Amino acid sequence: MDIPKIQSRLKEFASERDWDQYHSPKNLSMALSVEASELMEIFQWVGAEESRKVVEHPDKLVQVEAEIADICIYAIRLADVIGIDLETAIDQKIDQNIEKYPPSANRHWSF
Amino acid sequence: MDIPKIQSRLKEFASERDWDQYHSPKNLSMALSVEASELMEIFQWVGAEESRKVVEHPDKLVQVEAEIADICIYAIRLADVIGIDLETAIDQKIDQNIEKYPPSANRHWSF
Amino acid sequence: MDIPKIQSRLKEFASERDWDQYHSPKNLSMALSVEASELMEIFQWVGAEESRKVVEHPDKLVQVEAEIADICIYAIRLADVIGIDLETAIDQKIDQNIEKYPPSANRHWSF
Amino acid sequence: MDIPKIQSRLKEFASERDWDQYHSPKNLSMALSVEASELMEIFQWVGAEESRKVVEHPDKLVQVEAEIADICIYAIRLADVIGIDLETAIDQKIDQNIEKYPPSANRHWSF
Repeated sequence: MDIPKIQSRLKEFASERDWDQYHSPKNLSMALSVEASELMEIFQWVGAEESRKVVEHPDKLVQVEAEIADICIYAIRLADVIGIDLETAIDQKIDQNIEKYPPSANRHWSF
Repeated sequence: MDIPKIQSRLKEFASERDWDQYHSPKNLSMALSVEASELMEIFQWVGAEESRKVVEHPDKLVQVEAEIADICIYAIRLADVIGIDLETAIDQKIDQNIEKYPPSANRHWSF
Repeated sequence: MDIPKIQSRLKEFASERDWDQYHSPKNLSMALSVEASELMEIFQWVGAEESRKVVEHPDKLVQVEAEIADICIYAIRLADVIGIDLETAIDQKIDQNIEKYPPSANRHWSF
Repeated sequence: MDIPKIQSRLKEFASERDWDQYHSPKNLSMALSVEASELMEIFQWVGAEESRKVVEHPDKLVQVEAEIADICIYAIRLADVIGIDLETAIDQKIDQNIEKYPPSANRHWSF
């Protein structure tokens, strides 16, 4: 995925509409959270196992795709506004998670 | 950004811990939303303009970086679980936004 | 506010539609979070000071009212499903906050 | 539940700390959403049915209680700042839901 190209498109999009004024980290974080909720809303009342069947429902899949795209767009835009290198940040976080949750700990999630 | 490589790392991470059982689209969408809130929390009580100054505060920047990474990780993982091509989805969404909000409409956001 | 009366109405509402099966704590917490985002979306792109002017915009005020109502409905319903005494929980939390943030500490929020 | 009494306590709490400046509708809606996510995080990786068992886990129950209290506190505070009558708003919303989802429609949620 060509992040600089996407960031350049998003920058031009904001600039042409004079929307840089709205794209503060605070507002972008709100927009990102709103989009994450819209994604979650699709799965709100179905069970976890049934949610896997979303792949068999093209109409739902299109919605999920659009919401994930919105989330990524705001994350990529925010990274640009703040000057974060997304790929490095992601790699580091995965490294940390590998250390934080050793496979041998065999942690399972329940009450 | 090498999405297939990240997806492969995340897949291995889940598989080695027997966590695929938790990574339903429903649960991943919840996790994504929780991470988006953790990002937002950093900017909760500061003004929009002050939130831009986050770049001058290395300790806050590290937090923001970690939260954006978490958000991207869950988005990339969910895209893999569901079989969504992220780059295409993002490009299509930007195309739609360009059409939905023509620059000439000069839309500004206020009450 | 007559919480037992509202809980009784919500219980009847769920029961008459055979929706108790969806009203698990997990699902209700998701629904609550989705409604909180819908409230937040109203204030997404306006400044904090401008958001106070919502009281001068009857159309926005009606939206805010509906979203706050939805949030309260899910909170009250969840409290019933789990058996939480809301008034006691709220009083205790305010007591804790008073202790956690002594006025003399004069804490202000900024980066 | 004595909403005016709670609002009076919250008003005094904010005033004594000079925090009215932070309690704009925008910021309060963000705080509410953050708390809703913290509630949801408790149920993130457990199944819907297992989430009902939260009542058997006193340590989890205490957490849920604290998060629901936080959510209610911000909702009640926001209603005061904006001048919304919560009880009326809730009653109206339940009335609307009864009309919107007639029991006879027998609507069930699945993909």
